[in-house]
Amino acid sequence: MRIAVLGADGYLGWPTALHLSAQGHDVVAVDNLIRRRWDEECGTGSLVPISSMEARCARWQQVSGRSITWHNVDLRDRDAVEQLVVAIKPEAVVHFAEQRSAPYSMISPSHGVETQVNNLVGTLNLIYALRDHVPDCHLIKLGTMGEYGTPNIDIEEGFIEIDHNGRHDRMLYPKSPGSVYHLSKVHDSHNLEFACRVWDMRATDLNQGVVYGTTTDECAQHPELATRFDYDGIWGTVLNRYCVQAAVGEPLSVHGKGGQTRGFLDIRDTVRCIELAALNAPAPGEYRVFNQFTEQFSVLELAEKVKHARAAHGLETEIHHVPNPRRELEEHYYKARHQHLLDLGLQPHNLSDTLIDHVIQAVETNISRVRRETIAAAVDWRRGGGLYRAPAASTLATATAR
Amino acid sequence: MRIAVLGADGYLGWPTALHLSAQGHDVVAVDNLIRRRWDEECGTGSLVPISSMEARCARWQQVSGRSITWHNVDLRDRDAVEQLVVAIKPEAVVHFAEQRSAPYSMISPSHGVETQVNNLVGTLNLIYALRDHVPDCHLIKLGTMGEYGTPNIDIEEGFIEIDHNGRHDRMLYPKSPGSVYHLSKVHDSHNLEFACRVWDMRATDLNQGVVYGTTTDECAQHPELATRFDYDGIWGTVLNRYCVQAAVGEPLSVHGKGGQTRGFLDIRDTVRCIELAALNAPAPGEYRVFNQFTEQFSVLELAEKVKHARAAHGLETEIHHVPNPRRELEEHYYKARHQHLLDLGLQPHNLSDTLIDHVIQAVETNISRVRRETIAAAVDWRRGGGLYRAPAASTLATATAR
Repeated sequence: MRIAVLGADGYLGWPTALHLSAQGHDVVAVDNLIRRRWDEECGTGSLVPISSMEARCARWQQVSGRSITWHNVDLRDRDAVEQLVVAIKPEAVVHFAEQRSAPYSMISPSHGVETQVNNLVGTLNLIYALRDHVPDCHLIKLGTMGEYGTPNIDIEEGFIEIDHNGRHDRMLYPKSPGSVYHLSKVHDSHNLEFACRVWDMRATDLNQGVVYGTTTDECAQHPELATRFDYDGIWGTVLNRYCVQAAVGEPLSVHGKGGQTRGFLDIRDTVRCIELAALNAPAPGEYRVFNQFTEQFSVLELAEKVKHARAAHGLETEIHHVPNPRRELEEHYYKARHQHLLDLGLQPHNLSDTLIDHVIQAVETNISRVRRETIAAAVDWRRGGGLYRAPAASTLATATAR
Repeated sequence: MRIAVLGADGYLGWPTALHLSAQGHDVVAVDNLIRRRWDEECGTGSLVPISSMEARCARWQQVSGRSITWHNVDLRDRDAVEQLVVAIKPEAVVHFAEQRSAPYSMISPSHGVETQVNNLVGTLNLIYALRDHVPDCHLIKLGTMGEYGTPNIDIEEGFIEIDHNGRHDRMLYPKSPGSVYHLSKVHDSHNLEFACRVWDMRATDLNQGVVYGTTTDECAQHPELATRFDYDGIWGTVLNRYCVQAAVGEPLSVHGKGGQTRGFLDIRDTVRCIELAALNAPAPGEYRVFNQFTEQFSVLELAEKVKHARAAHGLETEIHHVPNPRRELEEHYYKARHQHLLDLGLQPHNLSDTLIDHVIQAVETNISRVRRETIAAAVDWRRGGGLYRAPAASTLATATAR
């Protein structure tokens, strides 16, 4: 299948491009490399050194004998998106190419507006280009479980059956997102549902949970195939950050009470889920939503799992409850359905002490690159703020070499 | 009360500014006049001649002895919005300042993107400026009944109580909007709800129905106080367009079967609803939704009402069913609650033959200005298209003189 992976320079986009290529698909990788520039702005950086897209694609060709075509395209540029779609005529498009950090979107008004405009305009340009040039193409769009918030009822997969005043309908599941970034994904979901309903497009909206892990089968084949690993307060996800804190001997910082419960999944399951979605396209006109996660935990439970994994090696780990920079419920009901991908054949990698050990080992390999001052959350949901100091010149040189 | 009216150059913004001023409020009128430029782009124009904002404000001062301060500000300019808010420190902001035509948003991909960016960025800039400088200000935002679509269950006012798998929650009412424009209002609603929940702002989201009528008590006081009247296929609302068709002796054009049912209200009720919302602010942190309409009709019922009103004068009117340029249900259940504004004291002006006569008379006064070629719907929901030819030079001269 001819598949374009948009956002192919990111934490998940790159492993997805590799996985789809390894499975025999004809992969076109697209990105505008903005994430590397955002790192410079934020004073952050991947713990694991990452190569340029050119070097990665060349290495993959050498390792696997398979080629990935690479295009530097900004989805905000409508003409460029149209030209890309016309040139490659994809059968499926996997769309990761959005600003994906909740804290980044809360830094300032301009970061909030930038996030919504970037995500909405890119996705709209893509929808229009597919509608007008490859209307049968299957758009696989990354959303987030964070669109739902933490309702007091079970979370369904995108739709809910409602009985009301003696009548019935199947409706979009109501959303209550927790950041300006999460809002942008809710907006995308509505735009996508409309495109399917009115223009007969076909789309899968993957409401993904929080991803953890450092590598996949394909990324592990050569250091130049590694994907980025974020551990800072802006781009890092919670379990990855705990692992870095454990590796450097700092207490694990739990926001508030720590009862915040979310869906989680292993990065190896992300790439498999994407392939399952691609192999099982919806009908024309169908807007389909999968909740893409495998297990749910509270952030305190995750900290305790890391502590437990360390204790098995005789290592002590402290857990600190720090003031919560976010505005969110810290104790709440949470039960989210995630059946559709299992029905398509997903075999989950459940979270284990072994995986935690593995992540911590990966951190230890690069421990000299940890910038401790960037681990703590710095963006407050009420006051904004929170860019880290720009990295020192020596660190910048390393960043440029990446 | 010190109230800013954003979008004060529009069909409803201008009468609202006048009404609030007449009621003794201290009104600041804000617009960027883009609607007049969009008319030039589309080959459309107000049937009723409208004065410049300067002339209108001067005339209002002369007629009423009350002053309205006028600012030309583009809400997409964050610094300008911030300066405006700091300068006037409003207690309430009435926000009409959006691209508000569904057909306009469906002309082309660039019109769709422009609509969403214009509406989202303007509203986000406003939210941030209020949050940071007048956090207690009450934001009264115009949404649309079209956000709900046509669900098979009763439409509630913004929220719905859901029982699901033995548990209960009060959630945002699910939305199924029918155009890229309507989508932009859904996005705004989510952003607004978030601002209240996370930043303790106070907002009223007015999901307004389709407005008909030409004038209000204040606009009627002098020709220079008139508000615009759109009758074309891009900007005109359905009843106003039927009245123009009746006046020029053309058949009334009903899209498809005509069972499309919507909420409607008289322009005089719009201005009263806005004042009622302003006089009864929500608590800090409260996001409140009112469905702002007074009666519901199908578009075929409306055509029959116009035909009936004409028959009373011995005039024959034909009704033609034309191919529906939109993608929408033409026969469906529709029952929408609209209780909150009645509870606050709204006394509706129900639609009557007299009102229809009055609108047709207003059309007849300006009948030489009707551009017949712009009455038919020209934008197709599937194929886009549909700008009218640019007006002839002689018409342009008239337009410029407006």
